[in-house]
Amino acid sequence: MSFEAAVHAKAIQLGHQSLTMCATAGSGHPTTALSLTHIVTVLMYHSMRWVPDDPSYPTSDRLVLSEGHAVPIIYAACADVGVAVGKHEKRPLSTGELDNLRKVDSVLDGHPNPEEGFPFFDAATGSLGQGLSVAAGLALAANLDQIDKNIYCIIGDGESREGQIAEALDFIIDKKLGNVLPIFNCNGYGQADKVSQQQSPQRIAAKLEATGFTVLTIDGHKPDDIKAAVDQFRSNDDPNTIYAIVAQTVKGWGCPSIQGGGWHGKPPVGDELARAIEELQATGVGLTGALSSDELRIYPPEEYQPKQAENRPMRSFDEAMKAYDMGLVLKSGKLATRKAFGLALRELGHADARVVSLDADVSNSTFAQYFARDKNLSHRFFECKIAEQNMFSTAAGMSASGKIPFCSTFGKFITRGYDQIEMAIISGANIKIVGSHVGISLAADGPSQMALPDIAWFRSFGTVTNHDGNPACYVIQPADAYAAFALTQQMAQHPGACYMRVHRPDVEFIYDANATFKLGDFEVLTEGRDLMIVTAGYMVHECNKALDQLDRLGVDATLVDLYSLPFDADKLLDFANQNNGNILTVEDNYGASLGSAVADACTASGDGFQIEQMTVKRIPKSARDEDSVLRECGLHFSDIVKTAASMLGVPVGA
Amino acid sequence: MSFEAAVHAKAIQLGHQSLTMCATAGSGHPTTALSLTHIVTVLMYHSMRWVPDDPSYPTSDRLVLSEGHAVPIIYAACADVGVAVGKHEKRPLSTGELDNLRKVDSVLDGHPNPEEGFPFFDAATGSLGQGLSVAAGLALAANLDQIDKNIYCIIGDGESREGQIAEALDFIIDKKLGNVLPIFNCNGYGQADKVSQQQSPQRIAAKLEATGFTVLTIDGHKPDDIKAAVDQFRSNDDPNTIYAIVAQTVKGWGCPSIQGGGWHGKPPVGDELARAIEELQATGVGLTGALSSDELRIYPPEEYQPKQAENRPMRSFDEAMKAYDMGLVLKSGKLATRKAFGLALRELGHADARVVSLDADVSNSTFAQYFARDKNLSHRFFECKIAEQNMFSTAAGMSASGKIPFCSTFGKFITRGYDQIEMAIISGANIKIVGSHVGISLAADGPSQMALPDIAWFRSFGTVTNHDGNPACYVIQPADAYAAFALTQQMAQHPGACYMRVHRPDVEFIYDANATFKLGDFEVLTEGRDLMIVTAGYMVHECNKALDQLDRLGVDATLVDLYSLPFDADKLLDFANQNNGNILTVEDNYGASLGSAVADACTASGDGFQIEQMTVKRIPKSARDEDSVLRECGLHFSDIVKTAASMLGVPVGA
Repeated sequence: MSFEAAVHAKAIQLGHQSLTMCATAGSGHPTTALSLTHIVTVLMYHSMRWVPDDPSYPTSDRLVLSEGHAVPIIYAACADVGVAVGKHEKRPLSTGELDNLRKVDSVLDGHPNPEEGFPFFDAATGSLGQGLSVAAGLALAANLDQIDKNIYCIIGDGESREGQIAEALDFIIDKKLGNVLPIFNCNGYGQADKVSQQQSPQRIAAKLEATGFTVLTIDGHKPDDIKAAVDQFRSNDDPNTIYAIVAQTVKGWGCPSIQGGGWHGKPPVGDELARAIEELQATGVGLTGALSSDELRIYPPEEYQPKQAENRPMRSFDEAMKAYDMGLVLKSGKLATRKAFGLALRELGHADARVVSLDADVSNSTFAQYFARDKNLSHRFFECKIAEQNMFSTAAGMSASGKIPFCSTFGKFITRGYDQIEMAIISGANIKIVGSHVGISLAADGPSQMALPDIAWFRSFGTVTNHDGNPACYVIQPADAYAAFALTQQMAQHPGACYMRVHRPDVEFIYDANATFKLGDFEVLTEGRDLMIVTAGYMVHECNKALDQLDRLGVDATLVDLYSLPFDADKLLDFANQNNGNILTVEDNYGASLGSAVADACTASGDGFQIEQMTVKRIPKSARDEDSVLRECGLHFSDIVKTAASMLGVPVGA
Repeated sequence: MSFEAAVHAKAIQLGHQSLTMCATAGSGHPTTALSLTHIVTVLMYHSMRWVPDDPSYPTSDRLVLSEGHAVPIIYAACADVGVAVGKHEKRPLSTGELDNLRKVDSVLDGHPNPEEGFPFFDAATGSLGQGLSVAAGLALAANLDQIDKNIYCIIGDGESREGQIAEALDFIIDKKLGNVLPIFNCNGYGQADKVSQQQSPQRIAAKLEATGFTVLTIDGHKPDDIKAAVDQFRSNDDPNTIYAIVAQTVKGWGCPSIQGGGWHGKPPVGDELARAIEELQATGVGLTGALSSDELRIYPPEEYQPKQAENRPMRSFDEAMKAYDMGLVLKSGKLATRKAFGLALRELGHADARVVSLDADVSNSTFAQYFARDKNLSHRFFECKIAEQNMFSTAAGMSASGKIPFCSTFGKFITRGYDQIEMAIISGANIKIVGSHVGISLAADGPSQMALPDIAWFRSFGTVTNHDGNPACYVIQPADAYAAFALTQQMAQHPGACYMRVHRPDVEFIYDANATFKLGDFEVLTEGRDLMIVTAGYMVHECNKALDQLDRLGVDATLVDLYSLPFDADKLLDFANQNNGNILTVEDNYGASLGSAVADACTASGDGFQIEQMTVKRIPKSARDEDSVLRECGLHFSDIVKTAASMLGVPVGA
């Protein structure tokens, strides 16, 4: 039997199964799946070097399905070859299990989701336009580990409208990632309508060429064409030639009755299903009985040879400062938390070879440059340019390869990647996100550069557990350089997503070399009995100033540095009760954030508390210095004093 | 004096002022400003049709500065021509005011910000890559209003890496927006380093051509070249020719001592400033004294002729259902909130000509298609394809032109545009955001399609006031079709940002034609005295079921439909106190959301409350139906009964 016929027979089988599993589930996208049936067959049964019983084997080629809704076709192939699945114990996926698609206890989630027990995939997809960046991350990690493997990425024509695809394409050319093969599945239909002419195969090919790719345009239902194009990619050894495939396909291939508009995400059932299957089978009349073939063979990858990394222990903040000629700064007693982050990142780089740094053209502001400019680390620094979405999804791909990616940019610009970050969290990515210049202390640059609702969003993930049972994300707010240094290290040690907020201004040291920090904990800086002030980050300093004045007014306040969300609620309640249930929270961002987290904790207890939340209550504007903006927003230490005194009925005086 | 010499002299003046104002402010981006000095001079003193004393005059040409950090050059020009500024009373901007750049009480914010009293700009920029989409929105609105005006948009080379630029370019070609002129300012430098070769003038030009643009590549410091290119754009009358300019410029033009790397966002001061000014002045030695010229003239726009719109009153839900042949559905007593939204949107379209609809390839899921397919409204529907970032910034541009844009897509995919939405909110945009398929009731499609931390983020804006003194955003959660219909209308009437969440499943009617809804309010569905259950949206139905069972257990519960955040806290507290301070909140999303908002309100009062928050506590997965996913997440009505009973110490029985 010819390769063409063998692929075709297998494609019919997988397409048939896609149709029936979606009909059984009552939802899903069989027509999209059918548009990929030949491409997936050629990749999974011929081109890819992999092993079904260990699909995440380090040297295995990878398949990233960016248009995640097409996943039934992959599930069908995986069941056919018995891919290992399972959340805890692994077992080969059986064809019978395809009937469980989308069931609450099935590994076959509605969209690719490695965390639900499907390690064939490296990342959850389904929110469109992200897969190619994930593929780039997998490719970068392979290059770092000197593993010769290929990453195939299937992208829908409709989803290629997402700007992130353009970002990923630029990144792939910039980094010369010839081990990634983007395959554009041009079936011509989106959900509501046909795709725009801007996403026609011709236009996509022209854009790819203008971006620097060598484009192979093929008929995505001709196995020999697919094979020839993928072979051309596989045999390429010119680092300046980066291939992409534009495949013209048919949505609902083989089944004319379910082609055209109106069949996106709608499985045929009953008579319609029977008719579609009949049509599909008719395309293989000459191939009766040939549902498998020696022409289709899965070739294994090379054996993995783990490399021993040379790590050295991480030094203390004081030692590191001195080692990097920052002894004078250390003596000055002041340093911005963002600089301490940069220092810690550099130390971590030497201490753990898995640590990589990604930044979006602001490494001289986030101080990721301390890592980037270290000649022993610079190969693990990845300049992502002004394209945050791609940065976060690339990091998710690197995490899937065992790296510990630190992504840094202004906290405000991290917003650009929230969807990507959420997908990374769903994927179980061990991603570390560092937002600098957060809150109103940025002052002069104004609200377009200030992160203000960021804590609300990230802390929402802290109310949920991920698949390891940990908070899906920690929010970390260091108040000084010692804290930032130690907490950066804590982030690296924690196996899961973390968001750290660092500030622009230099601030005085509050802690010293003996201070310890732990995710989920907090520090009581001053223990009083009248009022508990709870704050974090930059505002710890403002609250400290307030404490001095409150002391003069006879108020004995407790000051809590709540550097982690979530936190130990019971422990915080003990301190609240020691302060008669009087709580003042202070933060340099919008509400629904730290103060709200404290309110959540207190109200769960059922005890009576009074919580006053000081937050930014108006959209801020530029101001030349921190003092002006704090006054403008009512968050100056004098405002804190007034609020605290008023809560306790203490006169502030003239 | 020649045009060339006149522009050059003016360019030196504006550049000089950019340098001095940044030096005075102690921050800012004078080198970027200098790279634009000739382009801005030609546009503002020659090409644009506008009036300085009314810069937002409807028929005026507009300038969108996507790379907002270059704003000093615009401020200098605006002061030179006395542009009207001021938050309340308008006055001409004086040159002396340039010294106030970035002061807390100045209209000259760090980045363009119309809401701080600078109506020359239509939208706040500064978070990069968004301006071209805003420009597209302004152009679309002009076309709708049959106003012949041009929108000039300046984009940095570094920021053109942002995928949103690719989205905007596709959109401009799709919609044939020949009234937009994208001008790429290729000065070769980003912040941390040079721009990538992927953003070289050649590469940008190639990508633009592949996208469908006719590209004019010019020297951005040659006034005649700039003029010729802009004139070519202005005189174009071929709807199929869409121009873009690629301008090669010098960052820190005229001042060799501050060119090259290391001078991004860093104003020279003292001797360095003196030297830079000296260098700049030297470029104009032949032009001594010629700081203004008849060659530079601002031509006014055409007089605005307002058009009378034909609006008809909005019908009631019942009337509309019948009118649109949905009488049988009305009788069935069930309808998904997303469908009621679509119906309301259609009614609104007829009732208010300012209402426009934008959707991202899912109008058959959000039911924006009810608007899109109405032949009298379809010209006001804008299919944005799968490119959410562009959709939201386009909407901000349309809002700046007086439209009321409703943007709809899956709530999860709205995340893709959070940065753009925040910028729209900073801009004071009257933008309406509708997220469908939110929460876990989406079930089968899994977490990649479910909006779960969305309320936390949007409600954070509800804790802040915008420049009108209103909450910067309302979060709206209708529980049934009547509520969705009425609240869509409320959103349109409210002058400011709103986010409405609608669900996939059909749900029973709870309200009827007599129900009224108001942003900031809530509805008490059942009044009890033992426990107040607070919920919204889909979960109202689950709580209603729980109430029946609780009643059988002898629990007399209050049920609050908290359809708006923020809400009337005092009124809610009254009901809480009527229920002995026992509060159970129930929601189908992650925490930091509705329950947390209730906790905020209660703890502010100082009274004692016990609040139990039922939220999604793990990253969810696919399930075939709502019941399975609710059980899996512990949010089934039986779970609500158990939790409520346990709070009150009531045995649930066998």
